[in-house]
Amino acid sequence: MKAVVLASGGLDSTVTAAIAKRDGFAIHLLTISYGQRHRVEVERARQIARALGAADHLVLDVDLRRIGGSALTTDQPVPKDRSEAERGKDIPPTYVPARNTIFLSLALAYAETLGASVIYFGANVLDYSGYPDCRPEYLRAFEQVARLGTRAGVLGTGVEVRAPLLQMAKAEIIRTGASLGVPFHLTHSCYDPAPDGIACGRCDSCRIRREGFRAAGVVDPISYVDM
Amino acid sequence: MKAVVLASGGLDSTVTAAIAKRDGFAIHLLTISYGQRHRVEVERARQIARALGAADHLVLDVDLRRIGGSALTTDQPVPKDRSEAERGKDIPPTYVPARNTIFLSLALAYAETLGASVIYFGANVLDYSGYPDCRPEYLRAFEQVARLGTRAGVLGTGVEVRAPLLQMAKAEIIRTGASLGVPFHLTHSCYDPAPDGIACGRCDSCRIRREGFRAAGVVDPISYVDM
Repeated sequence: MKAVVLASGGLDSTVTAAIAKRDGFAIHLLTISYGQRHRVEVERARQIARALGAADHLVLDVDLRRIGGSALTTDQPVPKDRSEAERGKDIPPTYVPARNTIFLSLALAYAETLGASVIYFGANVLDYSGYPDCRPEYLRAFEQVARLGTRAGVLGTGVEVRAPLLQMAKAEIIRTGASLGVPFHLTHSCYDPAPDGIACGRCDSCRIRREGFRAAGVVDPISYVDM
Repeated sequence: MKAVVLASGGLDSTVTAAIAKRDGFAIHLLTISYGQRHRVEVERARQIARALGAADHLVLDVDLRRIGGSALTTDQPVPKDRSEAERGKDIPPTYVPARNTIFLSLALAYAETLGASVIYFGANVLDYSGYPDCRPEYLRAFEQVARLGTRAGVLGTGVEVRAPLLQMAKAEIIRTGASLGVPFHLTHSCYDPAPDGIACGRCDSCRIRREGFRAAGVVDPISYVDM
């Protein structure tokens, strides 16, 4: 039983991959190197694939800097030191236009070619309420595209999109990961790391991660620039 | 008024681009170089963009050979000399897993970044009844993904997918193109061209093209290996 897992090298997708493995799937990791500012995560994804015993790991290049439109793919500044209230207000500038649709469509192609019936995807609605492409109704709409737009769908085998973290708080994700032995030390979350890959500690993603580890009562094993 | 046009360098997408221009849009062409066997079409797309006076032309590399699963991206043979009845029976081996979903998702990202409200897409249901991702219900499902999964959708501006050729027979597409002055001599249709780019004349795509020009009473200006 095969599953494709979208693996960014981050915390959520790594916990998601561990869940897919626990669910009994041979996990085929797919990482998209899209020209993101925090490219260190692609190398982390390779280390995570080995640590989790993935059946294979495909790294695909799709240079979304050519399209732009996001602080993650241009020189736009990444917001720092925002409180939870500030983070929740708008779609953040780190939103990458249609990124999850691009990633899911590549995962769909990979799943169809492999004969995998499931795509695991680490979307999470609570912490990232500002990203439209992390909402449950969005994922259901994508499943409909998968059902109608593929050979697998026409033959009735289909491809299901599972987002097991969708409704979890970050602390719950971290506790779940801890119970599955996720190698947290390999995961990268920062949107704007130092040149050596060390997390800034201050972008939205770092803040959500740190608040989550604190709330979960788990020690975050990675280093931050400010500590 | 801006529109993104998925431009493959083929006949249908070129007629579609000409329709978008006639409809009053500044046309932003997007070509995906995906490692297709018939890569000559990417160069043709560049020539077509110039001939049509496109506002710009973005060529993005996404190497789908890494995923495989199609006669267009592997060494699998491309079927030749199939009759209309044979062509209509199954999903053909030239189906590329989830290709149109990948292309539309990249067009969606581009449209969102440009502030374009429309994507023009040359899908056609009649000639390619075997491709699941050319069906009207598929395109409607993708529009739902576009509505739910983007900043543009959340803000209510949205991105519409227009497939003006969807229900046209090939002859009708050719007559429409002729009336709009489409540079047919630049368009490439063959799935399996000779090394110099000359069309084989025998694959499904060549046969559909030649039958279409014949039915339309229009002279096909391109060369074929067998004539």
